[in-house]
Amino acid sequence: MRFYQGVNAATGELLTGNFPICELDALDELLGRAKGAFEDYQTIESSKKALFLRQIRINLLEIETDLIDRAHLETGLSKPRIKTEFDRTTNQLLLFAGTVERGDWLEISIDTEDNERLPTPKPDLRKWYIPLGPVVVFGASNFPLAYSAIGGDSVSALAAGCSVIVKAHPSHPGTSELVAEMVIKAGKMTGMPDGVFQHVHGQGFELGAGLVEHPLTKAVGFTGSYSGGMALVKLANARPVPIPVFAEMGSTNPVLLLPNSLQDQPEFWANTLVKSLTASAGQFCTNPGIMIGLKSDALDVFVEKFKEALALELDQIMLSSSILQNFEAGKETLAKLEEVDLIYTKTPESNRHVGPSLALVNGLDFIKNPLLHHEIFGPISLLVICDDAAEMLNVINSLEGQLTGTVIGDAIDLERFDVHYKTLITKVGRMIFNGVPTGVEVVGSMHHGGPFPSTSNSYFTAVGTDAIRRFLRPVVYQNCPNDLLPLALQNKNVLGIYRRINGELSKSDVD
Amino acid sequence: MRFYQGVNAATGELLTGNFPICELDALDELLGRAKGAFEDYQTIESSKKALFLRQIRINLLEIETDLIDRAHLETGLSKPRIKTEFDRTTNQLLLFAGTVERGDWLEISIDTEDNERLPTPKPDLRKWYIPLGPVVVFGASNFPLAYSAIGGDSVSALAAGCSVIVKAHPSHPGTSELVAEMVIKAGKMTGMPDGVFQHVHGQGFELGAGLVEHPLTKAVGFTGSYSGGMALVKLANARPVPIPVFAEMGSTNPVLLLPNSLQDQPEFWANTLVKSLTASAGQFCTNPGIMIGLKSDALDVFVEKFKEALALELDQIMLSSSILQNFEAGKETLAKLEEVDLIYTKTPESNRHVGPSLALVNGLDFIKNPLLHHEIFGPISLLVICDDAAEMLNVINSLEGQLTGTVIGDAIDLERFDVHYKTLITKVGRMIFNGVPTGVEVVGSMHHGGPFPSTSNSYFTAVGTDAIRRFLRPVVYQNCPNDLLPLALQNKNVLGIYRRINGELSKSDVD
Repeated sequence: MRFYQGVNAATGELLTGNFPICELDALDELLGRAKGAFEDYQTIESSKKALFLRQIRINLLEIETDLIDRAHLETGLSKPRIKTEFDRTTNQLLLFAGTVERGDWLEISIDTEDNERLPTPKPDLRKWYIPLGPVVVFGASNFPLAYSAIGGDSVSALAAGCSVIVKAHPSHPGTSELVAEMVIKAGKMTGMPDGVFQHVHGQGFELGAGLVEHPLTKAVGFTGSYSGGMALVKLANARPVPIPVFAEMGSTNPVLLLPNSLQDQPEFWANTLVKSLTASAGQFCTNPGIMIGLKSDALDVFVEKFKEALALELDQIMLSSSILQNFEAGKETLAKLEEVDLIYTKTPESNRHVGPSLALVNGLDFIKNPLLHHEIFGPISLLVICDDAAEMLNVINSLEGQLTGTVIGDAIDLERFDVHYKTLITKVGRMIFNGVPTGVEVVGSMHHGGPFPSTSNSYFTAVGTDAIRRFLRPVVYQNCPNDLLPLALQNKNVLGIYRRINGELSKSDVD
Repeated sequence: MRFYQGVNAATGELLTGNFPICELDALDELLGRAKGAFEDYQTIESSKKALFLRQIRINLLEIETDLIDRAHLETGLSKPRIKTEFDRTTNQLLLFAGTVERGDWLEISIDTEDNERLPTPKPDLRKWYIPLGPVVVFGASNFPLAYSAIGGDSVSALAAGCSVIVKAHPSHPGTSELVAEMVIKAGKMTGMPDGVFQHVHGQGFELGAGLVEHPLTKAVGFTGSYSGGMALVKLANARPVPIPVFAEMGSTNPVLLLPNSLQDQPEFWANTLVKSLTASAGQFCTNPGIMIGLKSDALDVFVEKFKEALALELDQIMLSSSILQNFEAGKETLAKLEEVDLIYTKTPESNRHVGPSLALVNGLDFIKNPLLHHEIFGPISLLVICDDAAEMLNVINSLEGQLTGTVIGDAIDLERFDVHYKTLITKVGRMIFNGVPTGVEVVGSMHHGGPFPSTSNSYFTAVGTDAIRRFLRPVVYQNCPNDLLPLALQNKNVLGIYRRINGELSKSDVD
């Protein structure tokens, strides 16, 4: 058996713990167990599933300190940052437990029969959603808790009634293992079928590919790079039976800087955006990687204040040495471009640290060079300076699909640049007004998704309760005897949930 | 300019009318017009969109007789059958007009702000769904009205707020053209933007490929063969910016014949299933192409009665000579297989006609030969005879994804074969109890979709009001000033629709 160890992100030293690498010849057994577990788990009553999710939270709370310590060592993220993520992760478990119980995600729709209708009787039709089967989740490097072992992908898949196999991200195997143990323990404590949640380790692409290609895998959740996500999407599409890969592949999250607001508060917006840019060393998928403004004195002031704020930022550790290398390489490529002015950068205190940067480019050059439209994962933002409103609109039109867009503008700005921000909305999954793109609220109204290439499927969200939909599909019962229907579809509304009956939402029983 | 003509399905003679073939060099202009129209159309108020859809219906009613005559000539389908389809098509327009006005498909979700929350304020988030952009629809050979120019795909895309380009099916160009004229006329009468609906002709694969590959195309609706659908899916996945292809690719719609019911009413079920099998010469995607029963005297009686009922069926005209050839070739391939017994077939009255057939195979042989699992489009059913309940379960487990499954069984059967029909449900989009798979009700609770290979995406339906979802994606407004929000998302619930507010459905205003 092969093993590997975690690495201290700050020092490069190996950490304790040997993690067994899952070999390809183990996948049949692994997926077989996941399928067996799914067959039982999918029909377990909601209250028991909710209990399972709540027990995971309780178990995680018991190891909170150890977990935060380990995650800090493996990722280089600060302990307060990881504590915030820990809270998000445990709150998310409560949120989905409540969602499972509430059952509105079943989206029940009933059309009752009409035997008198001519020329043919109208049948009784009852639709709801059923889980897809075993789901493979890839741990995300930048969310060791909230998008890894029991992050948003795993919890929404479990809430949907799917069994889950997590491939730990190799940059935080110890964190992932600690969490997985708590999940598996919770499963045992609450009587879940063995194999409802499994956790494997591996370093290269091979294991991930094997998991996606396995015939028993029914869906995939992924958060990471464009190249990584698209590699999985291609594998999934090439299967004899294709499966969905819900890949969140990042974004440059353009920020429109409109003139009135900028003139009023250049320093405030510079400071606010620098905080958003440098939080967690810029390693958020909603990082403001592109800003778009109009050539003006106000913009010049903004740039100066931005540089001053950047200079106050401490150097940070990145998630792994490969992420740091990619960041530096991306920045270097940018700096070498004739049309780009790397107006602020900083030699960090050590070759394990990173400092923030700001680059400038004019609108026409930005439009012409596709390279400038791609995300550089880390604390760098590119300010696109437009000659006028028309060029600004051309810049917006040239953008790719994005997770978010942001507009900084007062009432007068928003009226004058109405077409601009509305055009930006057509490119994004979430539009923020006078705020920052980082900070993704975990609620029903969140949409963390967006047009390609930000995700592989703009219909679905990776954050919030609607994430559950990714792992479901509709099934209709036609003329099924009432007592054989699943409880939620029977005439009596035992669950007391809203159901669409003959087109109208209602909590009534069916007559 | 190149032209082609329609063909009389019954005689092979050319029909009146020269239809211009759309060349590839016309696509930029075509899609440019579709995009321009989309930009206006997407924000037109609901009541006006509904008026447009209703006007299409009124215009179609004015040409009803001519339309039915032409469709009859081009497709060989009987006039009463086409009249039924005409009514479905016009009712569908009313249904979607009402749906547009009702607005529940916007699935509005609002989470209100909490500025007191620690450590960070909770933002105001408002989610709804916006249309994708220009949609390409492929006319379906077997539904010259209900899935062609203004069939289910087009009407749901228009209802969603998308502009539509229809590629007429080359086997009924005249029918498609007549309908398209009425749609375009309705658009003019109700002040819709020019290009909101466009209609093109073409015979080969080239035009369809060009439409799917065009960068301005944002989604595709298709109903047809597996090979045709998958060819489009592959093109769409290979685009620089992939787009969704909602392909409904057919199915064998397995029917479980359980012993008690069969013993009680062998003749009734034989007659009922023969009617389902032979309706419209078996050219429905929900045609019962596979039946599964247990070796028994009752099954022998059923087979005899089935043959008797088949013998009473008149020969029919198929949709086109190529469909007829494919059917005969598929039947011949089946007949040549050693393990298959083509127990009933018939030499039709002419080489333009088709007669129905029944074939038998035993369970083990069925499981072994993948060829037997594929749809033969037309009036043939394969009865899989199982030695016992265990083999029947193996047969069910060996099935591919299906649009529908059907179980014929009384209360005792359904208890005894509980695992069997429940396993079948995991393979299908709609499960029918004691009925037939043909006949697809156009209502909110319909799901006409199913696991691969029956469709390219099991989440979405091609029939019923939820079909609108295929052409939408979510967008969130974060902290947007109330007066700049789209009307439906503003505090005051002007539209009077259900909205999910802080997790609870409500028709209230937001405080």
